[in-house]
Amino acid sequence: MTPAADIRPGERAIELPAAFDAGLYFIGRIRTPWTRRMDCPKNPAEARERGQACTIEVDPRWADGLSGIEACSHLLVLYWMHEARRDLIVQVPRHVGEARGTFALRSPVRPNPIAASVVDVLSIEGAHLRVIGLDCLDGTPLLDIKAHFASADASKTDAGANEATF
Amino acid sequence: MTPAADIRPGERAIELPAAFDAGLYFIGRIRTPWTRRMDCPKNPAEARERGQACTIEVDPRWADGLSGIEACSHLLVLYWMHEARRDLIVQVPRHVGEARGTFALRSPVRPNPIAASVVDVLSIEGAHLRVIGLDCLDGTPLLDIKAHFASADASKTDAGANEATF
Repeated sequence: MTPAADIRPGERAIELPAAFDAGLYFIGRIRTPWTRRMDCPKNPAEARERGQACTIEVDPRWADGLSGIEACSHLLVLYWMHEARRDLIVQVPRHVGEARGTFALRSPVRPNPIAASVVDVLSIEGAHLRVIGLDCLDGTPLLDIKAHFASADASKTDAGANEATF
Repeated sequence: MTPAADIRPGERAIELPAAFDAGLYFIGRIRTPWTRRMDCPKNPAEARERGQACTIEVDPRWADGLSGIEACSHLLVLYWMHEARRDLIVQVPRHVGEARGTFALRSPVRPNPIAASVVDVLSIEGAHLRVIGLDCLDGTPLLDIKAHFASADASKTDAGANEATF
């Protein structure tokens, strides 16, 4: 991505800090059916509606971390939106049509392009997890897998949370 | 944290990679009532039960990213567990009592110690957000704020997901 190019009217880029504050390890890759952004589901809910499964591949160094994961029917997966620019602080998403702050959106474009999705686990074979609920490009770097608890990961008043128009 | 110290029987540390694969910016800080780990709620659900509010402070550089966030009753907050070691791949949590892979747990100790919590927004004043649902130490670095949608962020079968004993 060229930072200066491809800004829509109303969008705003800022100057990023000169240095990073912390570092990430890529612990694996996500294999999906989608090699172009235009083919990706809009969000995890659409991925789930389509019923298209993806495979999480954990690198051998970290594979022992999967021990006991078969007890989890759902997982919270964090991954790195490696193609997203990081300097847009106000964006005009096509489906919104007006300017909105990056933190009021789920756009992959953000200072730290970390995506978070809850997935349904279909099967586990060694360090490969077959799941439903991911919406990313094939080859997306994996950052973390966590046990997901509905009780801890959602608000009690969650059912009425936010309109899905952002 | 001293990597070699403080390993319980059954836990296993690995050698971390020599280099990072990506970098993070700290975009603000989280102010909480807790300055010692032993005082923190066990998880966001307990924080919510206690009803103790925290304040998310977004640094001026990123503050315009909050534009439009007042439409969000709930937010997904990502933060950096800066005191957690990163090399334990098998852990024995005190409340579990047996060895389990890091990815089957919600422990802050993990290769990329990123925490994810859904919060209820109480009030917004400039770049300070008063919220309920965080469980971290005072001064914890902020990584991201995202609009939270119950429809996109939870599985349809979520209500029955996992026992809360991990």
